[in-house]
Amino acid sequence: MDGVELTTLKRIKHPKGDVYHALRANEASFFGFGEAYFTTILCGEIKGWKKHLRMTMNLVVPVGNVCFYMHNEDTHETVMFELGERNYQRLTVGSGIWMAFRGCSSDINLVLNIANIPHDPSESVNVILETFSL
Amino acid sequence: MDGVELTTLKRIKHPKGDVYHALRANEASFFGFGEAYFTTILCGEIKGWKKHLRMTMNLVVPVGNVCFYMHNEDTHETVMFELGERNYQRLTVGSGIWMAFRGCSSDINLVLNIANIPHDPSESVNVILETFSL
Repeated sequence: MDGVELTTLKRIKHPKGDVYHALRANEASFFGFGEAYFTTILCGEIKGWKKHLRMTMNLVVPVGNVCFYMHNEDTHETVMFELGERNYQRLTVGSGIWMAFRGCSSDINLVLNIANIPHDPSESVNVILETFSL
Repeated sequence: MDGVELTTLKRIKHPKGDVYHALRANEASFFGFGEAYFTTILCGEIKGWKKHLRMTMNLVVPVGNVCFYMHNEDTHETVMFELGERNYQRLTVGSGIWMAFRGCSSDINLVLNIANIPHDPSESVNVILETFSL
């Protein structure tokens, strides 16, 4: 889908605890640093839909598993990617894409978003979950 | 300790899963974005000592609890801070400070480092754990 990109990330094994890559400034999916924050999503719960007007998100799931749904309202297309311990990839989502996400593991589901702008409630819009099919 | 700073961070309650602040570009402890990565540390294990020559670290523990030990070799001072679910703060560590850290919870202990430069093995030095007291 236009405006959505997946990147495989390294997990480096270590006997005292592994190291997980997230994002480097020299990667093509880096669009600047405005804010980094975590969101958690309980198992079976869904947050969404939300569309950002200016934010590009870089999403990584270091703990648990999360299903991300992206909807393009021009083409009426919805795509889903599961990210997390089962599939350690980074999802880059540009502005203008509707997104919802569901917690898929029974324990903690943790999402890191490295956003190109700081949080600004005026640059995002929300609609209820029933607006688009998952 | 000079070169070490603690900042209280917000955890915002949400019925579907809480949101945790990490770092915004307009905060005083932001020194640029070079790379974000995770490191995990098993319960009771200690990684360290390591000293960065150019990197400033911004450390956040969204899952578990981690004890960070910082040693200033000029003043022979060691300080410890526990960060994590019990004490959700951000630890900013400038270059030139020796650091070691221990996993303090029995399940996952996850550290996010938002570093001002990308990983570069030539800008850090390691000594064995016995070099300085914890």
